Amino acid sequence: MHTDYFLGIDVGNTKLAFGLVAGDARVFHEKRVVATESHLGAEQALEKIILETRIMLERAPEPVVGIGIAFGGFVDVTRTIGLSSPNFPGLENVPIVAMMQDLAPGIPVSMDNDANVAGVGEAMYGKARGHREAVYLTISTGIGGAVLFDGKPLAGSQGLAAEFGHMIVSPNGRQCTCGSRGCLESVASGTSIARIARERAPQSDSLINYLASTPEEITAGTVCQAALAGDELAKAIVADVSFYLGIGLANIVSGLDPDIVVLGGGVMNSADILLPPAIQIVEKHLAVRGAKVPPIEASDIHDDVALWGAMALARAAARS
Amino acid sequence: MHTDYFLGIDVGNTKLAFGLVAGDARVFHEKRVVATESHLGAEQALEKIILETRIMLERAPEPVVGIGIAFGGFVDVTRTIGLSSPNFPGLENVPIVAMMQDLAPGIPVSMDNDANVAGVGEAMYGKARGHREAVYLTISTGIGGAVLFDGKPLAGSQGLAAEFGHMIVSPNGRQCTCGSRGCLESVASGTSIARIARERAPQSDSLINYLASTPEEITAGTVCQAALAGDELAKAIVADVSFYLGIGLANIVSGLDPDIVVLGGGVMNSADILLPPAIQIVEKHLAVRGAKVPPIEASDIHDDVALWGAMALARAAARS
Repeated sequence: MHTDYFLGIDVGNTKLAFGLVAGDARVFHEKRVVATESHLGAEQALEKIILETRIMLERAPEPVVGIGIAFGGFVDVTRTIGLSSPNFPGLENVPIVAMMQDLAPGIPVSMDNDANVAGVGEAMYGKARGHREAVYLTISTGIGGAVLFDGKPLAGSQGLAAEFGHMIVSPNGRQCTCGSRGCLESVASGTSIARIARERAPQSDSLINYLASTPEEITAGTVCQAALAGDELAKAIVADVSFYLGIGLANIVSGLDPDIVVLGGGVMNSADILLPPAIQIVEKHLAVRGAKVPPIEASDIHDDVALWGAMALARAAARS
Repeated sequence: MHTDYFLGIDVGNTKLAFGLVAGDARVFHEKRVVATESHLGAEQALEKIILETRIMLERAPEPVVGIGIAFGGFVDVTRTIGLSSPNFPGLENVPIVAMMQDLAPGIPVSMDNDANVAGVGEAMYGKARGHREAVYLTISTGIGGAVLFDGKPLAGSQGLAAEFGHMIVSPNGRQCTCGSRGCLESVASGTSIARIARERAPQSDSLINYLASTPEEITAGTVCQAALAGDELAKAIVADVSFYLGIGLANIVSGLDPDIVVLGGGVMNSADILLPPAIQIVEKHLAVRGAKVPPIEASDIHDDVALWGAMALARAAARS
């Protein structure tokens, strides 16, 4: 029996990931990850992409019928050119789709921004799969999201729907990277957690200082690790993060009444400590109106969610 | 040429409204409004409904092909019985749809809660008409809403989507009627505006006290009227309301990226003073990300929005 293969490629600033999947399978036939090494320049990164793509195409036991690319930056409206890649100067204006078409003539190729495709990856391959209305929230450097109806993302009138990172959860609060104040991202993103700890830890005997030898080494992970170990300052920071995350989730659930909320992104490696208090806030907020709280869970594919999103693009490309 | 007529009925706690519309028209062929006089009991209200419905059916120059009822209370899951009507004891368990079918044999009848149908009315007959993605927000005693995709309301998994009144805009803020804290409704509904003024006005020489002879007579309208006249306390209260309304709108726009936001409800009679500062907050919040602010406008049919929603139900009933 014949099986179609799909190739997904995640072009990120720190890693390049390549996944091969057989038909409807939800596990990789093969997955390869190499460091992007963006400091060595765009040229070498593109060479790696070409090399690894060739290898993956050869590894497929049967023909690859679609290629999807999740690009860690902005893509042009025709979805064929990588316009810019934050933190990776040099990767601008690369005609990535044409490059792939040279490598794999006749195989349809589709590309989109990695944040855009992550939700679709979650809906097709993760816990949001099979749900009529799902919300995906990604908490890493920034905070992004997707609202998925039957697996299809809500775009909005300007393609800017589900910007949950810029929901105001703390009026008159901290300045956000977007320039506004009190956004969820300004109090609960990985960057924000680290920044708040960098401000507060040096003035204390917090464990955070011992886990990171310099303030610059403090990350969201360090903070959560210290909180797990019982450090008071870390626990206070984590409590604030969970509080605002809870408010954000309560507002998402009140506004959209989804079947499920799935959270991904690097910060969710600390879901065990961050998520339960946030869910308690949602429960308390909704219980009074007699509304049920939908499942709110950490993604089980979040390390690969952009790659699975690329796979969803590959399948869509093959169908078109 | 033959024209179908539709009859819409708005069964509210203070008024009973009846509208007759010819085909696709967006104006009433005839509209009748009578006081509900709920203090006289349910029996007399039901008699009025029957009498006025008979009159409207006779007034239609050509046959009425669908009847829609917007009920100011909860309706049962089969949408045939009015389960309860807040502020109108006695109107429970009335089989309103069966009552209508007796009056107008063979004409399809459809009923729903007035808040549910208001958004659909706005989408079919108001400013949200023709928009792919619209948000309707109603600010009166409470705050409710609807998200409309091509005119169809997002239901959510429990039928509780668009509960924007219970978006938390003021963490650790005022107690809301729902039991939670800091909900938009707790700081910006008509009831809340009046309550805040009742708390603050008696301790001051505010104009609010002169507009209302007793604290109980203070309404959102009184407060806005005093603010328009330059009263400092009223201006401060109105500024707070606009601030939180702005945060709520900024979050709605960030999360849903709609084509248009339309606001209705009695409090929007004071839209001229409340809305512009709120829109400024949205503009400031979005401008920094380069996103455009969609039109955010007071409804031009908001006195009749439930009646127009009933009309939309009537048309749907006729098609089914």
